[in-house]
Amino acid sequence: MGAIPWLWEQLQVPVYCTPFAAELLRRKLAEAGLLEVVKIEIVALGDRVKIGGFDVEFVSVTHSIPEPASLVIRTAGGTIVHSGDWKLDRTPAIEPQIDMVRFREIGDEGVDVLVCDSTNVLRQGHSPSERDVADTLAAIIDRAEGRVAVTTFASHVGRISSVVRAARAVGREIVVAGRAMRNTIEAAREVGLMKDLGTFIDEEAYGFLPRNKTLLLCTGSQGESRAALARIAGDNHPAISLDERDLVVFSSKTIPGNEKAVASVVNALALQGVEVLTSDDALIHSSGHPRQDELAIMYEWLRPRALVPMHGEAVHLKRHAEFARSKGIDETVMALNGDLVQLNPGPVKIIDEVVAGRTHVDGRIMVPSHDGPARERRRLSFAGIVCVSALLDAKGKMLQPPQLEFEGVPETDDAPIHHELQLAAIGALEDMTGAQRRNDATVIETVRSAVRRAAASNWGKKPRCKVIVHRF
Amino acid sequence: MGAIPWLWEQLQVPVYCTPFAAELLRRKLAEAGLLEVVKIEIVALGDRVKIGGFDVEFVSVTHSIPEPASLVIRTAGGTIVHSGDWKLDRTPAIEPQIDMVRFREIGDEGVDVLVCDSTNVLRQGHSPSERDVADTLAAIIDRAEGRVAVTTFASHVGRISSVVRAARAVGREIVVAGRAMRNTIEAAREVGLMKDLGTFIDEEAYGFLPRNKTLLLCTGSQGESRAALARIAGDNHPAISLDERDLVVFSSKTIPGNEKAVASVVNALALQGVEVLTSDDALIHSSGHPRQDELAIMYEWLRPRALVPMHGEAVHLKRHAEFARSKGIDETVMALNGDLVQLNPGPVKIIDEVVAGRTHVDGRIMVPSHDGPARERRRLSFAGIVCVSALLDAKGKMLQPPQLEFEGVPETDDAPIHHELQLAAIGALEDMTGAQRRNDATVIETVRSAVRRAAASNWGKKPRCKVIVHRF
Repeated sequence: MGAIPWLWEQLQVPVYCTPFAAELLRRKLAEAGLLEVVKIEIVALGDRVKIGGFDVEFVSVTHSIPEPASLVIRTAGGTIVHSGDWKLDRTPAIEPQIDMVRFREIGDEGVDVLVCDSTNVLRQGHSPSERDVADTLAAIIDRAEGRVAVTTFASHVGRISSVVRAARAVGREIVVAGRAMRNTIEAAREVGLMKDLGTFIDEEAYGFLPRNKTLLLCTGSQGESRAALARIAGDNHPAISLDERDLVVFSSKTIPGNEKAVASVVNALALQGVEVLTSDDALIHSSGHPRQDELAIMYEWLRPRALVPMHGEAVHLKRHAEFARSKGIDETVMALNGDLVQLNPGPVKIIDEVVAGRTHVDGRIMVPSHDGPARERRRLSFAGIVCVSALLDAKGKMLQPPQLEFEGVPETDDAPIHHELQLAAIGALEDMTGAQRRNDATVIETVRSAVRRAAASNWGKKPRCKVIVHRF
Repeated sequence: MGAIPWLWEQLQVPVYCTPFAAELLRRKLAEAGLLEVVKIEIVALGDRVKIGGFDVEFVSVTHSIPEPASLVIRTAGGTIVHSGDWKLDRTPAIEPQIDMVRFREIGDEGVDVLVCDSTNVLRQGHSPSERDVADTLAAIIDRAEGRVAVTTFASHVGRISSVVRAARAVGREIVVAGRAMRNTIEAAREVGLMKDLGTFIDEEAYGFLPRNKTLLLCTGSQGESRAALARIAGDNHPAISLDERDLVVFSSKTIPGNEKAVASVVNALALQGVEVLTSDDALIHSSGHPRQDELAIMYEWLRPRALVPMHGEAVHLKRHAEFARSKGIDETVMALNGDLVQLNPGPVKIIDEVVAGRTHVDGRIMVPSHDGPARERRRLSFAGIVCVSALLDAKGKMLQPPQLEFEGVPETDDAPIHHELQLAAIGALEDMTGAQRRNDATVIETVRSAVRRAAASNWGKKPRCKVIVHRF
């Protein structure tokens, strides 16, 4: 969703999506000035559209965002089901249910290949339902005496609705902190969701609400430093604060890589005396992805000839292929990004590679992730940089001592590294012959090596080094 | 342990420790050339030493390293027990047991303050014993058909011994990969541990061992990129490789912050087809720190007047204080690094602050962590750097166009940012009056602002910028 404004110029194709997704997308496009440019084709859950040689049916599933769908892609070469992100939740927080009847019919019709979510394949059993999570949250909110703040994924309308219902049941008013969550809620209301949940209170009124009548919904469950919760935890939020009488509930899972950021927010809250509950303490979060028993049920419905695991790291793809084989689906393939897989005629196999990889948004421009500026900056973060500028005449005479500037290179009384590198640069220039000094490339390379060698021996690290030569 | 060679020069005090710790320390000091300089005082478990006004008794506990001890510190002002890292394991992998009898006696004698490990205070119950972990590992090794590689903390002699015993039971030879683990094993044997476990096979012989007769012990359980396991997973190890018939067992917990590194090793192994087991899959690791039931037992033994939680982040210290109060210890304090706590006369309270904080080892020198070069490098990693060098005469005339060098600043066909910044630097110099150009500080600041402004508008980020002025 976030990438569409960036990639649309390269792709220039219409975007097919369900109404809620369309509403979110319109908001993103409007910010990027692309609202009138990108063509959005809205498809209702259960509908079927012809797109070139593809006949695509949107089949309702359950997930941690409204209107999730699996795609049944019928082609001249066979039928593929792409699961999308899904779980099998018989009591989701928002309707509709996963369309079991339709999945069985599609299975009867015949499925060649299931391309399927692998996120939770390492976990046995069946994931808990959103209703169970809602019940636990309601009990916690009911018991609480001070303010309750709940943080969850900004797009999780079902979870947000469960929290709001629980708060309403005990007469708490709702304050929403965080732009992404306000945006999601507006988009949800726009398509008719969250209709029975009343109006919310402005941030500015937060301080006037009775403590035991306040329920705060906020962004920042991943410890994002600019999100509402981190600002509240750091006592930096303009309108909202918490104290030792209050409770913060992380109705979320920490995404791998965010552990330190989340711990830092939890610790900042603890320092303020705020009580914190996480999904380690109670069933206050459930994943939106299928565990093994759910996968097995989907296999039974669809009885695909072959399975292509997707959405997961190598370890998940490998285990998903093994799990499918253990359930009688013999054709599987472990395809990574860029692998070109032949689905029909079978058996499914990797037949080629296409160009793939990440593109970073760096400031306002797009750059490849693996080389270029991001890599240069990683090197800078390790050992900093030295800039040397030398003034020579055309005959190679040094007109002034070179000037050095440093960034990220230490200098202490015991270790005068800057001074040592200055001496190294001067020494290198002096030691060259006149002929060598007449050649810019030789000067640059000689000074650069001398400075980096001196850094290695005085500091133990080799910084980047840029040498500029002025000829006058 | 790792900090002693760095800090000793500032402290210049003898180091008191148990025999195994002394053996490890001697190896560190020898590497740093300090073996003859630092005075090591060896104290046997159960012994008592007088150090100035302190009478210190080493009482045996259980933990994930040999010879762990709590310290009973008797002073004129009262008796303090410092728990050290500990757990209550009645069936540890290596002797001795935790000295319950002595702890009860010390409790009878009277304890003013218990300073206690808080790491696992968020977890209810009692942590599993090393014997249970050993049994699970033995069953896994017994069942395995191919090679088995086990990675764990290099210092965990108990766990290493359990793995070796399990391997011996099914006739597997032991190969140890990784310097830190070989070093630990040598130190352990030096003090009489691991005596009954036979000799190990050299890395070089690994390739000649039958697959089902091989047990590999290796470093790298935290995904460290230079440790044995990461090199094996990346197929970069000179002597050792694994394939789809083999099994890797992570007998470890991922320390917060290392999740991505560990996932990357697990995924690299999965890509090679290697099967991976982690502590999510089976009881193949147990923490060395006490859960709530163990803490409660220690409180009963010692019946301290007050409790000072230590070893943990703010959230752990807060919960530990709450837990102690729930068990009847009314005096607690949440002291962070640098807080000066008055223990007696009570109640315990924070009375002052002392200078505290981290010191980084940066290359071969020590620097403070919060400002200075580490912070500069963090900024460099965000937006890179531009170096500008200008040649002017004493009257402020520009003798040449300025030269620019870039590191970490993108440049694409669509976004010729380097060119734009060059124009900005030239424009800034041209737009200054002659008087302004005669002043170095004005030139530097004007060019710097112009370059950063141009970067902000063309790129969306403000790089660092160093300006050098030559006067000729």
